Amino acid sequence: MVSTTSKFVAEMIGTMVLVLMGCGSAVIAGADGTTGVGLLGISFAFGLSVVAMAYAIGHISGCHINPAISLAMVAAGRMKFGEAFYYVVAQVIGAIIGAGILYVIFTNHPGAELGPWALGSNGWGTGYLDEYTTLAALVAEFVFTFIFLMVILGSTSTKNIHGGFAGLAIGLSLVLIHIVGIKITGVSVNPARSIGPALFAGGEALSQLWLFIVAPILGGVFASFTYNLLIEKPEKL
Amino acid sequence: MVSTTSKFVAEMIGTMVLVLMGCGSAVIAGADGTTGVGLLGISFAFGLSVVAMAYAIGHISGCHINPAISLAMVAAGRMKFGEAFYYVVAQVIGAIIGAGILYVIFTNHPGAELGPWALGSNGWGTGYLDEYTTLAALVAEFVFTFIFLMVILGSTSTKNIHGGFAGLAIGLSLVLIHIVGIKITGVSVNPARSIGPALFAGGEALSQLWLFIVAPILGGVFASFTYNLLIEKPEKL
Amino acid sequence: MVSTTSKFVAEMIGTMVLVLMGCGSAVIAGADGTTGVGLLGISFAFGLSVVAMAYAIGHISGCHINPAISLAMVAAGRMKFGEAFYYVVAQVIGAIIGAGILYVIFTNHPGAELGPWALGSNGWGTGYLDEYTTLAALVAEFVFTFIFLMVILGSTSTKNIHGGFAGLAIGLSLVLIHIVGIKITGVSVNPARSIGPALFAGGEALSQLWLFIVAPILGGVFASFTYNLLIEKPEKL
Amino acid sequence: MVSTTSKFVAEMIGTMVLVLMGCGSAVIAGADGTTGVGLLGISFAFGLSVVAMAYAIGHISGCHINPAISLAMVAAGRMKFGEAFYYVVAQVIGAIIGAGILYVIFTNHPGAELGPWALGSNGWGTGYLDEYTTLAALVAEFVFTFIFLMVILGSTSTKNIHGGFAGLAIGLSLVLIHIVGIKITGVSVNPARSIGPALFAGGEALSQLWLFIVAPILGGVFASFTYNLLIEKPEKL
Repeated sequence: MVSTTSKFVAEMIGTMVLVLMGCGSAVIAGADGTTGVGLLGISFAFGLSVVAMAYAIGHISGCHINPAISLAMVAAGRMKFGEAFYYVVAQVIGAIIGAGILYVIFTNHPGAELGPWALGSNGWGTGYLDEYTTLAALVAEFVFTFIFLMVILGSTSTKNIHGGFAGLAIGLSLVLIHIVGIKITGVSVNPARSIGPALFAGGEALSQLWLFIVAPILGGVFASFTYNLLIEKPEKL
Repeated sequence: MVSTTSKFVAEMIGTMVLVLMGCGSAVIAGADGTTGVGLLGISFAFGLSVVAMAYAIGHISGCHINPAISLAMVAAGRMKFGEAFYYVVAQVIGAIIGAGILYVIFTNHPGAELGPWALGSNGWGTGYLDEYTTLAALVAEFVFTFIFLMVILGSTSTKNIHGGFAGLAIGLSLVLIHIVGIKITGVSVNPARSIGPALFAGGEALSQLWLFIVAPILGGVFASFTYNLLIEKPEKL
Repeated sequence: MVSTTSKFVAEMIGTMVLVLMGCGSAVIAGADGTTGVGLLGISFAFGLSVVAMAYAIGHISGCHINPAISLAMVAAGRMKFGEAFYYVVAQVIGAIIGAGILYVIFTNHPGAELGPWALGSNGWGTGYLDEYTTLAALVAEFVFTFIFLMVILGSTSTKNIHGGFAGLAIGLSLVLIHIVGIKITGVSVNPARSIGPALFAGGEALSQLWLFIVAPILGGVFASFTYNLLIEKPEKL
Repeated sequence: MVSTTSKFVAEMIGTMVLVLMGCGSAVIAGADGTTGVGLLGISFAFGLSVVAMAYAIGHISGCHINPAISLAMVAAGRMKFGEAFYYVVAQVIGAIIGAGILYVIFTNHPGAELGPWALGSNGWGTGYLDEYTTLAALVAEFVFTFIFLMVILGSTSTKNIHGGFAGLAIGLSLVLIHIVGIKITGVSVNPARSIGPALFAGGEALSQLWLFIVAPILGGVFASFTYNLLIEKPEKL
């Protein structure tokens, strides 16, 4: 029996790692493929954060490190709301700590600039990367989280005999989602990942935060209903 | 016992993911390695789509998400034609949905242009990437699908004790095939993946569609015969 | 009991895939990281060829697809010389077929040029990449094959309980070796992989072939002795 | 029962591979993403060295190949100090051999230059990459080693039923750490990896060595205490 404290600390550290390393890859290492790690490097940073933490804390808390996952698990009948609630609290705290460590490291070198949407904040519209519309941002975050949860629900199903591969499949699916989506919104599919940097960045990162809370949660919950109704009936709890 | 509906929905969603994410990586993120994800990033997008879906829906439908695979499975004596038929229908529908979602997202940003072979359509000859000849396109698609099916047939053989790794090996082999082949045809090895974007792109993408239906199916079926005759005798059904 | 024919065909097809796809990534897709797949993409192509074939034919022939491996297995007491001999024949035939298919595809596009060291041939010295000396080429091929065989011998040891991961570890170690070594010799660590393209390229690719036969075999055999003497005593055969 | 000699040789060879291949990727293949393997390629070289050796020698010595890991294992109560001591000796010897082989290969090509922080030495401040401050270097090395050890402690826990994936998760977490951290310190998280090249490079690489001994050890030990106290109580030894 894993204690509530262990799960809380695990989710907090896991989300700290995701935000520090994922956003850090963009902020410290850079999106230019010649001088930095490029969009592909950033994509791997987000996804490998999940792979690493899945095998580190998966046996403790399940390694959600994402409020959209915890709430989708409630919708899928795989988790109680009360437990999801303190998972989400731990995740948001961890995300803020991760963004804070990134702030300390990044600002300690010459020429560090914190422009709009600083520290790897998500966003869209005028001034943000390829300037996709609100509709595109909404569709992308909804569909990407839907896909992400399909992978999570299927690979961790009790009827899936290759459950050991779930951490790898889920993390690599996040690499995939970032490869496709960075130029649209920077890719959230995770409200905590968006909240952390936005609190430090302020401005539009903060005023656009609603989309990265609403769309991932809706996409995740929709995936849970689709999975249970059309793909695999859940076992009775 | 998995229901027919579950398999149909799983194959449809899986192929939707492959087309949306694979083609999306080229269309949204870009083939330039400095400003985009580069050819390597696109290769990973196609392959990781398969890795992700293999562990998500492999236990439901086997995760073919490719008519050439379903038909090669019939040729290998591992699937009945009737089942393969409705798999193919689901795959083609999923591919069209995937291309449709990509169309909606992509056209919702300034400067979105749909040129010839739009939305990641396959092609060859004058105006398409390195302008390989029809012969090169035919040989490449035939040989690549042959290799792809060799990996699929071997890694999912009932005599292979490391069956859990099949999803990873198959997906990574698709990364490999894209690394080598993108400049030739954009890489299909999957009729559904070609049909989806071509319906939206029209023009030469549509008139060249025949090659991406014929060559992958022939290459896949040839792999099945080679595998059963020369490498591993099939068990009696 | 797997038949000799099955093993022969498996090794032949496996080596064909390695040469076609590994060398093909350099020749067709290109070593430039902005317009092609870059050195990293080429590295993944060689390594993922091994990952793919390891899970495809590992249960048939062990997936050596490399004479240096088969001969090192003899030195390690894990294989009889007679069996290694026909493995090597199959590997060399497969490598030539792979280079031949690559020749057909590549020359079927405008502007295809076959310069010195064509079709991804290995080499060194004046005119070859960073122009490393013969000493550097010898040391690099010897040490890299030594490392490659350490991974193979350890990961496939009967005392290693994670044997399912061997194909992945071995393939990824080949990615690693290519990341480091491409600019030195193009990386062989595999006589068959060097023989295939050299027969088509002729010239210096052919006259330098001896190093890519001698150094990998010596490095591999040295690894076998080191492993058996200093790391893990072999079980009696 | 694995002999002390076997463990010593395994740790020595493993660390040799890590330093030769990790540092070699930067020195030989280059950090430029267009003409070399780029920061992403270097990141994969370090991480895949760990993946490769984990499955090669993990069953022999546990594949620490890093003094910070061995000492953290002592702090976590998973290893005796006496054993850790000779592990560290083997690791440092291996690192020096690795840097020596790299020196021999690299200096055998025209135009080889050994500037300050040569052979992939770690560093910070004026003249080193993005010139991060000492504070940033300390925080980064401490936090990165903390994260690295969290992955190691969790994925190799006896209560983790997916222990086979540990080598992959640990290696990929080192890829991740390098993606984020190369521009800060070149990434050490491993005193032996820093000692090897610094002995050949001299100058500031040597005078800055203290940080890459102190910070990784402190970060690793802190992770052990955190893990045992807050995440998973250790079993009695």
